[in-house]
Amino acid sequence: MNTSRQLPLAYPKDLKSVDSLLRNGARVTLLDRLALNFLYSVIGKPSVDFMLWDGTRAGSGKNDTRLQIVFLTRKALWQTCLRPDPGFGDAYTTGEVLIESDLIQVLTETFRATDQSPWQEFRRRFLSWMALPYGNSLAESRWNISAHYDLGNDFYRLWLDSEMVYTCAYYRSIEMDLAAAQQAKLDHVCRKVGLAPGMRVVEAGCGWGALALHMARNYGVKVRAFNISREQLELARRRARELGLDHTVEFIEDDYRNIYGTYDAFVSVGMLEHVGQSHYQALGKVIARCLAPHGRGLIHSVGRNRECPMNGWIHQRIFPGSYTPSLREMMEIFEDGDLSVLDVENLRLHYARTLSDWLQNFDRHLTEIRGMYDDAFIRAWRLYLGGCAAAFTAGTLQLFQVIFAPARNNHLPRSRDHLSTSLAPDYWKS
Amino acid sequence: MNTSRQLPLAYPKDLKSVDSLLRNGARVTLLDRLALNFLYSVIGKPSVDFMLWDGTRAGSGKNDTRLQIVFLTRKALWQTCLRPDPGFGDAYTTGEVLIESDLIQVLTETFRATDQSPWQEFRRRFLSWMALPYGNSLAESRWNISAHYDLGNDFYRLWLDSEMVYTCAYYRSIEMDLAAAQQAKLDHVCRKVGLAPGMRVVEAGCGWGALALHMARNYGVKVRAFNISREQLELARRRARELGLDHTVEFIEDDYRNIYGTYDAFVSVGMLEHVGQSHYQALGKVIARCLAPHGRGLIHSVGRNRECPMNGWIHQRIFPGSYTPSLREMMEIFEDGDLSVLDVENLRLHYARTLSDWLQNFDRHLTEIRGMYDDAFIRAWRLYLGGCAAAFTAGTLQLFQVIFAPARNNHLPRSRDHLSTSLAPDYWKS
Repeated sequence: MNTSRQLPLAYPKDLKSVDSLLRNGARVTLLDRLALNFLYSVIGKPSVDFMLWDGTRAGSGKNDTRLQIVFLTRKALWQTCLRPDPGFGDAYTTGEVLIESDLIQVLTETFRATDQSPWQEFRRRFLSWMALPYGNSLAESRWNISAHYDLGNDFYRLWLDSEMVYTCAYYRSIEMDLAAAQQAKLDHVCRKVGLAPGMRVVEAGCGWGALALHMARNYGVKVRAFNISREQLELARRRARELGLDHTVEFIEDDYRNIYGTYDAFVSVGMLEHVGQSHYQALGKVIARCLAPHGRGLIHSVGRNRECPMNGWIHQRIFPGSYTPSLREMMEIFEDGDLSVLDVENLRLHYARTLSDWLQNFDRHLTEIRGMYDDAFIRAWRLYLGGCAAAFTAGTLQLFQVIFAPARNNHLPRSRDHLSTSLAPDYWKS
Repeated sequence: MNTSRQLPLAYPKDLKSVDSLLRNGARVTLLDRLALNFLYSVIGKPSVDFMLWDGTRAGSGKNDTRLQIVFLTRKALWQTCLRPDPGFGDAYTTGEVLIESDLIQVLTETFRATDQSPWQEFRRRFLSWMALPYGNSLAESRWNISAHYDLGNDFYRLWLDSEMVYTCAYYRSIEMDLAAAQQAKLDHVCRKVGLAPGMRVVEAGCGWGALALHMARNYGVKVRAFNISREQLELARRRARELGLDHTVEFIEDDYRNIYGTYDAFVSVGMLEHVGQSHYQALGKVIARCLAPHGRGLIHSVGRNRECPMNGWIHQRIFPGSYTPSLREMMEIFEDGDLSVLDVENLRLHYARTLSDWLQNFDRHLTEIRGMYDDAFIRAWRLYLGGCAAAFTAGTLQLFQVIFAPARNNHLPRSRDHLSTSLAPDYWKS
């Protein structure tokens, strides 16, 4: 466990000694200062100080909390200016950028400023011309998913809840911790699609199987759960056996495009981000052919307020082949299959809290994680978890839960009251 | 009251005597039979019989409930074949088409079949090339709105609830009648935008003022309510005076495009249908400039599962200048103004029930209505109310309530539990 693992994605080399960087910092030139101030302005003058290796600072001067981003090398500064994605993330990964005070807070303030910067529209348009390196064919999807989800179950176990739910939790009440909020999320999903004993459910992208097992155990349904991550499936199957649910939950190693059969409910929590927008119609076709006329489905996905290219660093270093759609883009899934959107809920701040809880767990287990991976990996993952928490807090990312049904399905609950209470749903006469 | 009023929209001439039509029916030719069978097939072979004036019938033969559409003249048959919109509606209006057994049921079965007909896609594409005659400029909107909403308050009073709410009600529980369901809808809207005493609310398109008055009376807010229907506003202002609310509710005769100021909440119930899709960005700009950073808004509108041209008969005879958008098209409102969609609820079956209740009330007051309008008007309005009830039942039309907020607004309730219970909303710490 104490040798670093082979990672599927290339991370920049770990520079290890930050102190030596500081001691050996090159002299700050006029051009460096201009670059620093340019960067600070383009980012929209956040209430975060930007600092160079010799203490040169750009900032509002009103920053009492000492939120700061420190560029320890000229390379870090210039690669951030010239190609912020993946330049900035890579410089943070090598240790050439330090973020001082609270990681999430610094990034939240930075994202808030960036979103309002007049340069943002330019950046959005510019980025949308850039081709990202990973596609979403059947084979590419296998590789993309493996690169992230097959990093090792023992790694994820350290910082997820005990059931290993790796999607946005639902902190329905203020006193819920991560584990309770994940259980609340599972129930929320089950109630939303109207599970009842004996129903046949298909799950597209089942992670370590928590939702599939929860549905079978607590709602008496039969589940076929699809995933293309081998490591996740192994654990999911073992759990099913341990719980005596291996006859009601079938874990299938296959792509969502190969789902056939007819089901009373379709659920997909946290898979759409890996589908890629050019495959939304294909997903819609799968749903339209698999969902019974009286059925309902749910898709839970990270999203955007408007179309926006993927962050290049996340795409290249964390989630190859990923894409976070706007609601408009998600409609591609439903329109051709004549599906009707019944309900959309945006759980943005729930994901901010979930990610912040994951990061706290991650930090609590740093010693064990250091035994598995090198510092570059750890810095990259802290930036990913903290950066996503910040993006949800700043309103840059959204979390949409969309419920849908075949257009002619009138077997629908009259209200959403059963989602908030323990009442049975009150259906329209059909 | 017993002379027919001048109507702003042209209705086909009332033929009055249906019996004389039947007696004088022309001989049914081979071509008429072919047309009848063609029509029945193109519509998708509904479980409704199509009959000609001499008893010639096209149908599945399995129609035990005697649902039937009777074409009493050759003209009615051929204008329905050649230009179904507005041909069919116009033939019904003149009395040349009869719908036997239950109006809503006949139309529901017909719409269900049409939606699944292989010709439907062709029809959709063909219709989208046709220009509809009414636009949505400031002046055109005035005329469009006046043509429908200024028909006379005494007319609408006969078949709406006593507070005259002319939008989809919310039948939260099975025992609610129309009046209770309209009150439930008003509260649902108020809770969704998080009203609290002292807030400033703007309403775009306020009808006879029921929501504005409800908000002021029950939630202690100040309301500025906009409308361009003069008749509606007169009544709304009188009510405000009667209720002693004329200092907290201001009814303004002006277009939504002229809303200025800053408000804690923006509500618009049943106006979007009259905005026209080329003005969604303009509406978005109004919202973005008027909504406070901590504010929330709600748009309630008839919609579609996918982009679809307006029904030509409804557009020309009932709601000039109207358009019912898909969710995708509605996103146009929110995306440019950097608004975040928080919640979408589809109340389709609630509107089916509302319209069916209105039609029942309408029929109960036929005698009084006959004193106001001629039979052509009455047939047209029965077809409109029954046809819309059928379209919502068949899943052809949707009713979307969309809640939104500025993208950076973190003053949001943690869950929707307060919408279902009398609990106070539980806000995220912000």
